[in-house]
Amino acid sequence: MSSQATEAAAANLHLALLERSEHVGCAESLTGGELASWLSSTPGASATFIGAVVSYASEVKRAVLGVTAERVVSSDCAEQMATGVRRLLGVDWALSTTGVAGPDEQEGQAVGTAYVGIASNQRVQSVRLVLEGDRPEIRSAVCAAAMELLLQEVSHG
Amino acid sequence: MSSQATEAAAANLHLALLERSEHVGCAESLTGGELASWLSSTPGASATFIGAVVSYASEVKRAVLGVTAERVVSSDCAEQMATGVRRLLGVDWALSTTGVAGPDEQEGQAVGTAYVGIASNQRVQSVRLVLEGDRPEIRSAVCAAAMELLLQEVSHG
Repeated sequence: MSSQATEAAAANLHLALLERSEHVGCAESLTGGELASWLSSTPGASATFIGAVVSYASEVKRAVLGVTAERVVSSDCAEQMATGVRRLLGVDWALSTTGVAGPDEQEGQAVGTAYVGIASNQRVQSVRLVLEGDRPEIRSAVCAAAMELLLQEVSHG
Repeated sequence: MSSQATEAAAANLHLALLERSEHVGCAESLTGGELASWLSSTPGASATFIGAVVSYASEVKRAVLGVTAERVVSSDCAEQMATGVRRLLGVDWALSTTGVAGPDEQEGQAVGTAYVGIASNQRVQSVRLVLEGDRPEIRSAVCAAAMELLLQEVSHG
């Protein structure tokens, strides 16, 4: 997805949330802040975007977000990150990202394996992604997938 | 500063921290996650970058970082954000960003007014920036300035 397309996706998501007076926050591991950067990129983003925790180190996942999952590259970790940051920030919707951006594999999982979590007051779920590309491409693709997932949930939820 | 130059600055900072076995984290307002994204962009970043709090909403600054400053666009706020995230993440160095990315002025301060905070176990300080450009340009310039400030402190501190 091009930078322009991601920018448009962020703007669409902002408008969909604005229409419902709903707020989003996120917890990021492999995307390292890029998802929050997109969610705050639209002018007026403060009406829908509250904040984020970039839990790059496992200790931050545990201490700040309450993650107990043993494996970082897992649906459990993604769902616990989303649940934890939703509680911490008090948002309607929380997104999370965890996985392997490379260059090296992690926990025996290949580069490009990633999980996106999403939590609302209704439910918590996660999606597994298997992506190709270099480190920046994988990070950007995870961000795009996370915003797309939330847009679907907000629009059809 | 071009994207390539910022990428190089992030890589230099990573190496300088790696050499000293020191860790960095950050607290971001107007940059919205972009600084964390740069700090985690270098392959192997997990050896020096711990995490971040994107405190876009004032309530997150207060509740998660312990900010008490009344004005968000201020040196006090920048220094309290840096102090708060340094404590939360247990890092050697904490950076913070706050200010006005636009399109509208904030607290009577012009678009492009920003503060970068930096906290170590030695001291806390902040720098005031007056930048020109559009919203993405201002955000990127603040990130570049923050990384430059930390590189100077790490190298000559």
